[in-house]
Amino acid sequence: MPKKKELLILLTNDDGVEAKGLKSLINVVSRFGKIVVVSPLDSNSGMSHAITVKVPLRVKKVREERGITVYGCDGTPVDCVKIAFNLILDRKPDLLVAGINHGSNTSSSIFYSGTMGAALEGCINRIPSIGISLVSHDPDADLSATEFCSKQIIEKVIANGLPESICLNVNVPKTDLGQIKGIKVCRQNKGYWQEEFDARTDPQGKKYYWLTGRFFNTEPEASDTDEWALKNNYVSIVPVHIDLTCYDTLKKIKNWNFENE
Amino acid sequence: MPKKKELLILLTNDDGVEAKGLKSLINVVSRFGKIVVVSPLDSNSGMSHAITVKVPLRVKKVREERGITVYGCDGTPVDCVKIAFNLILDRKPDLLVAGINHGSNTSSSIFYSGTMGAALEGCINRIPSIGISLVSHDPDADLSATEFCSKQIIEKVIANGLPESICLNVNVPKTDLGQIKGIKVCRQNKGYWQEEFDARTDPQGKKYYWLTGRFFNTEPEASDTDEWALKNNYVSIVPVHIDLTCYDTLKKIKNWNFENE
Repeated sequence: MPKKKELLILLTNDDGVEAKGLKSLINVVSRFGKIVVVSPLDSNSGMSHAITVKVPLRVKKVREERGITVYGCDGTPVDCVKIAFNLILDRKPDLLVAGINHGSNTSSSIFYSGTMGAALEGCINRIPSIGISLVSHDPDADLSATEFCSKQIIEKVIANGLPESICLNVNVPKTDLGQIKGIKVCRQNKGYWQEEFDARTDPQGKKYYWLTGRFFNTEPEASDTDEWALKNNYVSIVPVHIDLTCYDTLKKIKNWNFENE
Repeated sequence: MPKKKELLILLTNDDGVEAKGLKSLINVVSRFGKIVVVSPLDSNSGMSHAITVKVPLRVKKVREERGITVYGCDGTPVDCVKIAFNLILDRKPDLLVAGINHGSNTSSSIFYSGTMGAALEGCINRIPSIGISLVSHDPDADLSATEFCSKQIIEKVIANGLPESICLNVNVPKTDLGQIKGIKVCRQNKGYWQEEFDARTDPQGKKYYWLTGRFFNTEPEASDTDEWALKNNYVSIVPVHIDLTCYDTLKKIKNWNFENE
């Protein structure tokens, strides 16, 4: 990462250009370099790594905020990153930060997260990338503790860089700064969502279903996971890679002998 | 995986209930057990692991096909899997197969893929899961070679099971069966999409952009990757895990010393 010249930092999120968390992130990051924001116009929670292929995309300048241009796009967070790289920025950014998300993205929630979708997209494009989430869905949540911790983590990433193909998944507990015990580097917790679809009937008598659910932690006792860290008032950092290959299994399956081939 | 009782197999895809690839998959899998299909009503290419949270979902029985009920859902492939698990199936399926996708899902394309989103969702829910894709976007592609190879792979998964938290990403080259050299267990190729947005102007004079691009392989010489396998007329199998933690980096970042905390 270049040390001498001004850093170019791309921000995005999945809660949309008006989200408090995005404004908070601008607060944190503006001290570190030139900032460009490209975010979805509306909430894109749960959009994961989705890209828009069936309809075209539109982009507009939404506002100038303390010298920072905020662009809005009608696509997904990953669309925003692609739009930024290819239509808005005149060079590759030195850093991508997605967030601050209103809601936790620990454990397997990383798969559904638009915030982490954007961070992973940066990572695939070999940009040091960080996704930051606060464990509160309140759109008006107090983000001061998250800002304080995010600043430290971003400083470390700028100072140390990140290995190629690695991004960070940062989650901050919903508590006052004084209650936060520290920053913990963790592994991704094992767990899944237990869905309970909320079935309703529309005025025409037809059924429809709202996706609801609660998270089920399959290893609540393990103290080296992001879930444990958050539950115990630590900020969690999970270093995330983009090679999904399971090398142990690769060796095993090689013995399956597809002899008919 | 139960050997004696009839297997319950959930099928889904991202090209929609009418896709030829889905019908082809039904051909392959119906011999192995009781089949239930829950697929998107329309194409959901590029939907990754997205879930629908802003609007409710609807599900309908689309057709009975050789004793197999095909349900259509207006959500994403991952929504379909969740709907199947929670509203349609009376027990956990023994196997989930997503596909046969019209288009390659090798390398980093796994992140954008609705097919692999569905397979990963099965895996998160501890169901042996396989995503199968053919390297051709032709909706009328000849799927006979893909059917032949898929049958062998599914047989092996039924016979051997899969380790918990591992699913398979299978890709089949676009070629006749006689030209296919074999089935190769591979790692995920390193590469990314170079986007070139196709800019157009609408009748009101406003710009819009179509996402296009071409895949850039950063390691074309490596012969142990899925991309190499496909290019050389092998079927590729990448065993994929759902723990995105990079443990090597975890150790390194632990030395960052967030001393202010």
